[in-house]
Amino acid sequence: MVGSNVQDMGARAKRAGRALGLLSASVRNAALLAIADALEQAGSVLYEANEIDVRDAKAAGVAPALVDRSILTPKRLASMVVGCRDTAGLADPLGQTFDGRTMANGLRLTKKRVPLGVLAVIFESRPNVTIDISVLAIKTGNAVIMRGGKESLRTNKVLIDLVRGACRAVGVPGDAVQLIRSTDRSLVPELLAMDEVIDLVIPRGGPGLQALVKKHATMPVVYGGIGVCHLFVDASADVNKCIPLINNAKTQAPSVCNALDTVLVHREVAAALLPPMVDDLVGSGVRVYCDEDSMGALGGSVPRDGVVAADEDHFGREFLSLALSVKVVDSLDQGIEHIEQYGTHHSDGILTNDFANAMAFCDRVDSAAVYVNASTRFTDGGQFGLGAEVAISTQRMHARGPLGLQELTTYKWVAHGDYTVRS
Amino acid sequence: MVGSNVQDMGARAKRAGRALGLLSASVRNAALLAIADALEQAGSVLYEANEIDVRDAKAAGVAPALVDRSILTPKRLASMVVGCRDTAGLADPLGQTFDGRTMANGLRLTKKRVPLGVLAVIFESRPNVTIDISVLAIKTGNAVIMRGGKESLRTNKVLIDLVRGACRAVGVPGDAVQLIRSTDRSLVPELLAMDEVIDLVIPRGGPGLQALVKKHATMPVVYGGIGVCHLFVDASADVNKCIPLINNAKTQAPSVCNALDTVLVHREVAAALLPPMVDDLVGSGVRVYCDEDSMGALGGSVPRDGVVAADEDHFGREFLSLALSVKVVDSLDQGIEHIEQYGTHHSDGILTNDFANAMAFCDRVDSAAVYVNASTRFTDGGQFGLGAEVAISTQRMHARGPLGLQELTTYKWVAHGDYTVRS
Repeated sequence: MVGSNVQDMGARAKRAGRALGLLSASVRNAALLAIADALEQAGSVLYEANEIDVRDAKAAGVAPALVDRSILTPKRLASMVVGCRDTAGLADPLGQTFDGRTMANGLRLTKKRVPLGVLAVIFESRPNVTIDISVLAIKTGNAVIMRGGKESLRTNKVLIDLVRGACRAVGVPGDAVQLIRSTDRSLVPELLAMDEVIDLVIPRGGPGLQALVKKHATMPVVYGGIGVCHLFVDASADVNKCIPLINNAKTQAPSVCNALDTVLVHREVAAALLPPMVDDLVGSGVRVYCDEDSMGALGGSVPRDGVVAADEDHFGREFLSLALSVKVVDSLDQGIEHIEQYGTHHSDGILTNDFANAMAFCDRVDSAAVYVNASTRFTDGGQFGLGAEVAISTQRMHARGPLGLQELTTYKWVAHGDYTVRS
Repeated sequence: MVGSNVQDMGARAKRAGRALGLLSASVRNAALLAIADALEQAGSVLYEANEIDVRDAKAAGVAPALVDRSILTPKRLASMVVGCRDTAGLADPLGQTFDGRTMANGLRLTKKRVPLGVLAVIFESRPNVTIDISVLAIKTGNAVIMRGGKESLRTNKVLIDLVRGACRAVGVPGDAVQLIRSTDRSLVPELLAMDEVIDLVIPRGGPGLQALVKKHATMPVVYGGIGVCHLFVDASADVNKCIPLINNAKTQAPSVCNALDTVLVHREVAAALLPPMVDDLVGSGVRVYCDEDSMGALGGSVPRDGVVAADEDHFGREFLSLALSVKVVDSLDQGIEHIEQYGTHHSDGILTNDFANAMAFCDRVDSAAVYVNASTRFTDGGQFGLGAEVAISTQRMHARGPLGLQELTTYKWVAHGDYTVRS
């Protein structure tokens, strides 16, 4: 019975998705505005559900950081409302036609942008994700089946009912947005086997979730978000300008995937750069793991607060906190090799004034985003001008890096002829 | 040991792919021309290997059609040579930059087209596929690991040695093109688990191979090629022009995926269309499976050679031969519903002079290619102006339908700043 329930959800999502994809942008945007209004008016029923979730999570011994993320505050709710309205204002990702051409035989060809179909999104606690995903799915004409964390189940149920009600009120099928309301773990593999129905899976969670999806998914998946990010400081870099940039890349939002993890310093510039750079970072509360050579550049045995000898384990680590590692290298080649060996193909940059080195770095470093003289923190749909961001993919599919609304669409070929035949 | 061998191949492919992707178009094209020359000069060693393959396949009781496909004739070899030289002449899929923009903070962003990395292609017998894939991979800067059919193993070994020699002669790493030289079946699941190395899998084979890949693959896969293709003849269609078009869609190349399988006829036009259409098809040697209503339109009980009563099994079938099914429907809606239920989202068309119906059909039929007044046979990389074709995908990834050289690439974001930080 449980099994057939997820199958039923899939069949309903497919039908709803087909209908949603044919609705005009004005109807889809009306749904987003209706969701915003409904969130504003939700009031006590939403907060009460969240309080029970939070109380149960605490009682179950869920980690405090995780519990904190799942608390719905008026400020967080207000930010969800703004998100809905902002997304309604973005350009419509659908309906665009492109690559049009008329062939020698008179066949008129064009590609027309269309939704992917049905998305499945599996995520951990935070309730804002439930609204974010609903909004992105409706905007892009895709139906979505969500599976959220157990810690937010009651909150998510209230949110989804509210989203579905808002949809129906403006003529969007409620089944375009569905939540798996059971915490039965066997449902995830079942969902991941439904490749006849689900066109794309987006797991938003840690390595455990990614491994589960990798094992069971039979349809395309966008993995992402794990970023071990590097900056290589070339011999020609402007030392004074490097310091605030490195500070920005590390401290502006240390817990996100595009935050800096490792600074690679060319030996020629180590003595000039490292003492002020480390002082600056330590002054911002950063713990700095230094390899032997960079420790040497800091004055060898002189101990400094916040500076720790690095071991192998500190390279290739995504810190997600106020910590980074530093290593001295002999050349651009050695820097690039380090990034190839320890990086995750997310965001890596060079600080340099040498044009040839800048070009070589951009060509040879195989990351979704490569930077010259800029902070790794820019790898973000908003910063790249894509509007809303769905995920940051470190895979090498046809789309890569920050995925915007357009990357939740595909196209169909439309061909018009005059009873045209192939000769 | 066997296991570590495939792992080794993967590691070598990854290194070779990185080097290949940085070579200029002129070097990659020189490799294709060198392969063409080597094929022309191969002579007896190639034919002798093929003769042993063919003899062994016959002795092992392989189906004659399969044996026939694996025979290397001078004509087939000449066509492979032409293919290499033609592909060398196509525009370079790499190095293009696009979507460039400068953000308000001065960050200069562009997307740069780059190879996917390492491809794995699993295919059945035909030796020309070995050369086709080598050439497409080199042209697009991707390393490739191939696994061919047992029936052509000796031939494939000779071909691959020749390709690798030609590569090395012009400075392309030989390991960019590798063949799994063992027929051990356990190697395929092992290959499909190497998602750290392989970026895209392309299974070129029937439903059995597709199911195997679906079960084991942990990386993106392009499935494709199964096309149950429909033409809906609307009440307003020009009957006289429909007949040669339908004939073309069925008979111009009946064994390929974009060949017509089912004609759906609006009831109002059935009496006028069906008798001459069926005569025309039968005259071309086509076996026509008619539902009860279309049989009625043909004159009821009058038997005709080549006309057979259809049963349910004849709808939703990819005939791949001179056969098709015919059904009378009451409306455009019913036609679209039939396609939704029985089609494979490959290539479907409407024959009509009604503008609103043409528009509705193109919007509502969810196929990789939708046609108005044109043969389904056009769904093809060459016919769509893409140059070489890698596969025809019926999946809904970011690329869909005929995949050309560009669809074997992705992009990286390149960002240039002036020590630019995120505020």
